Amino acid sequence: MKRIALLGYGVVGTGLVELIEKNREKDEKLNIRVEAILVKHKEKHNNKKLNQVITEDCEEVFSKDWDILVEVIGGINPAYSYVKRALELGKHVVTANKDLIAEYGEELFQIAKDKGVALKFEASVAGGIPIIKPLTESLSGNDIKSIKGIINGTTNFILSKMYEDGVEYGEALKEAQDRGFAEANPDADVLGYDAARKLAILSTLAFKKRVFWKDIKVEGITSIDSKDFAYAKKANCKIKLLSYSKKEENRVFATVKPVLIDSESDFYRVNNEINSVILSGDAVGELVFKGSGAGMLPTASAVYGDIVDLAFNKNNVVINSFSEDKLSVEHRSEEKIQSLIRIDTDNKKELILELNNRFTAAELLDLFDNEVALLVDGYTEMELEERLITLKQLSYVNRVKRILKVS
Amino acid sequence: MKRIALLGYGVVGTGLVELIEKNREKDEKLNIRVEAILVKHKEKHNNKKLNQVITEDCEEVFSKDWDILVEVIGGINPAYSYVKRALELGKHVVTANKDLIAEYGEELFQIAKDKGVALKFEASVAGGIPIIKPLTESLSGNDIKSIKGIINGTTNFILSKMYEDGVEYGEALKEAQDRGFAEANPDADVLGYDAARKLAILSTLAFKKRVFWKDIKVEGITSIDSKDFAYAKKANCKIKLLSYSKKEENRVFATVKPVLIDSESDFYRVNNEINSVILSGDAVGELVFKGSGAGMLPTASAVYGDIVDLAFNKNNVVINSFSEDKLSVEHRSEEKIQSLIRIDTDNKKELILELNNRFTAAELLDLFDNEVALLVDGYTEMELEERLITLKQLSYVNRVKRILKVS
Ligand SMILES: NC(=O)c1ccc[n+]([C@@H]2O[C@H](COP(=O)([O-])OP(=O)(O)OC[C@H]3O[C@@H](n4cnc5c(N)ncnc54)[C@H](OP(=O)(O)O)[C@@H]3O)[C@@H](O)[C@H]2O)c1
Ligand SMILES: NC(=O)c1ccc[n+]([C@@H]2O[C@H](COP(=O)([O-])OP(=O)(O)OC[C@H]3O[C@@H](n4cnc5c(N)ncnc54)[C@H](OP(=O)(O)O)[C@@H]3O)[C@@H](O)[C@H]2O)c1
Repeated sequence: MKRIALLGYGVVGTGLVELIEKNREKDEKLNIRVEAILVKHKEKHNNKKLNQVITEDCEEVFSKDWDILVEVIGGINPAYSYVKRALELGKHVVTANKDLIAEYGEELFQIAKDKGVALKFEASVAGGIPIIKPLTESLSGNDIKSIKGIINGTTNFILSKMYEDGVEYGEALKEAQDRGFAEANPDADVLGYDAARKLAILSTLAFKKRVFWKDIKVEGITSIDSKDFAYAKKANCKIKLLSYSKKEENRVFATVKPVLIDSESDFYRVNNEINSVILSGDAVGELVFKGSGAGMLPTASAVYGDIVDLAFNKNNVVINSFSEDKLSVEHRSEEKIQSLIRIDTDNKKELILELNNRFTAAELLDLFDNEVALLVDGYTEMELEERLITLKQLSYVNRVKRILKVS
Repeated sequence: MKRIALLGYGVVGTGLVELIEKNREKDEKLNIRVEAILVKHKEKHNNKKLNQVITEDCEEVFSKDWDILVEVIGGINPAYSYVKRALELGKHVVTANKDLIAEYGEELFQIAKDKGVALKFEASVAGGIPIIKPLTESLSGNDIKSIKGIINGTTNFILSKMYEDGVEYGEALKEAQDRGFAEANPDADVLGYDAARKLAILSTLAFKKRVFWKDIKVEGITSIDSKDFAYAKKANCKIKLLSYSKKEENRVFATVKPVLIDSESDFYRVNNEINSVILSGDAVGELVFKGSGAGMLPTASAVYGDIVDLAFNKNNVVINSFSEDKLSVEHRSEEKIQSLIRIDTDNKKELILELNNRFTAAELLDLFDNEVALLVDGYTEMELEERLITLKQLSYVNRVKRILKVS
């Protein structure tokens, strides 16, 4: 029998209690007892299971006897202080909190190591998809070369709605909020910070040195509009918020930004709240993982797996990669890329002539008044940026917008 | 430092030694020493690494001092006796051998349990894809509802060639053999037994009671021809060897057979030697895994992960599911299905009239002389079989062939 303290009894906490009870009924060996549950508003939980152990007082939680602390409050404070306190007491911790790991991973993993306990965080990236464990255990023989992911469910839901229903960003965001897929303040999601934190966690584990989330170049989805989708469809693509990092020698390239995804890509069919991660290892090659990135039971499934690992499997993988030794992160790769370029113009005819001169191997998409779009191929980011600067100098060019295409 | 004994120095054994050396150079903590290597023909290995520890004498191997036995010989004998001997000596074992696990899992896991050691087998199913670990560790909170897989690289390579190049089975098989994707005697692969063994392993772990591979209904790919592919293309499908098992209450339904895979399916883009597994859990929902199912380094990546788990993580998940208590396996599900039906006939006109009477919601495909094909929907297997029996009784019907379609 193992005893846990549960911090937070919201979406994930409630799912976790459900899984603990279901599994104990099926298999008496999986006997996990919840000794205390910390919440902010006790009265909200009057009709829930385990009502007798719910408290608003963290001292009451820490005064009880338990083996593992499970943190599903979210955010930095007070989660950080509780997790730190538990580790310092020599207790194992399981968390679903990507903000905490991305921000304080270095300090927390160091304490865990000093105390000989584990800090587990499978649910913090890609919800129910097993990705932390495969990366840190199964693939230990590999040098990971790159990580690509659709790892933010909110933005993927919004972009899926815009694609399917042809609506604008604002309307899709509102539907996401109404259906509980986006928070009242959606900034962390739609501006790409949530994805950057998750990409930083995966990159740190994969590249074995710390990649700090603030070093990752982030571009959100707020400026994507229905015309971008019209061009994307014309080019047989969808638009997704892609988190991408790549290791080359001692350099890491990492970005989060909306991109065009080709219909042949494994990401093309990753819709709504579904997440997907593609890892590329020197020995194993490319591995694709896809599944629910959020939700009560999928996320609880990941938290439960971590608890069982600690409680019954005695799995004690030590995480060393959240070190002081940060990797420097670059934003511009030297790969040749494809891009969609939209140009606002007062003189379409003249512009088209000019574009034909300036870009070879480009496909023109002429769908709307006062603008022209171009699918270009075979330039590096740098080369392309240079060309766009000179384009912007033309008197009849008003605005230039560029979206990367990934195949 | 950990010491291993390696049995077999072929494709996987050679890849493993390469990974051990690469990782030790990168990180001195990953110090794994190969104390002995058993082979059948010592002279074949004269120019290889670690030449000084290669032997043809298994007694020499067992006389050395090591912590983990790695079995990559393959087949039942002598692999079985060596693995058993090591476990009985209280040594951990890592194997890539699906034949051995599917056939002798019950006995071997029992010995491991009695001796308090682990028998690990990640590479035995789907090569480099982490699937055993996610299933037995990450998803421990779930009741697994179903497993779908493309888990035999040889047949997937052959079927991919037939699809792409329009060639017949024999020619595609020959190319697979020439390129090292199929063995001289390909029966275990092309008749579906290899896939059945792997499906049995996954099903046993997922459903927590033993599913014996011989109880699984198996249909190979040897009777698939270019006309099947012509119909498949017309229906926007490919043909894949699908391994499928599903749990309902106390019943398990399990089959291995070639099916039509719709272009919207995650399996549609799983080509050549790539494998993919889709697990469905009650908490997590559907999870897709995709990657290299075979090959020197992908397979060695899985074996290496198992070794590190034992050597450095002290991960000791106990496998209880290969029990005496076998699940009874059924072959016919009661789901409504879609099927492609090909009918050889001397009287096409009459047959088409008759088919229109007998099948509603069916799409007729008329591509070749002397036969008609039909895509039917909405019948159970049983209902369909009954209708086909009466069809066969028509004087102008010569032969009826049916292939399941999966969307
Ligand atoms: N939801 C998902 O799909 C999902 C997916 C992946 C990861 N996660 C992560 O899982 C964590 C939890 O998410 P959630 O969706 O379950 O959040 P939630 O539904 O908002 O629940 C948060 C819980 O924490 C409690 N809480 C908040 N502030 C507190 C404080 N200062 N002291 C004590 N308790 C406090 C709340 O108490 P009251 O109920 O009393 O207000 C509530 O029970 C987050 O880190 C999130 O990023 C969630
Ligand atoms: N290859 C793959 O892509 C792959 C993928 C997944 C799983 N696996 C599994 O991995 C295992 C090994 O496959 P493999 O492809 O590496 O096989 P392989 O290339 O045929 O190598 C087999 C090795 O075992 C040795 N051997 C054979 N019989 C022996 C005996 N009686 N006593 C001692 N040594 C013996 C051979 O010795 P000699 O070299 O001296 O003849 C050879 O070194 C099999 O279980 C296979 O199913 C392979």
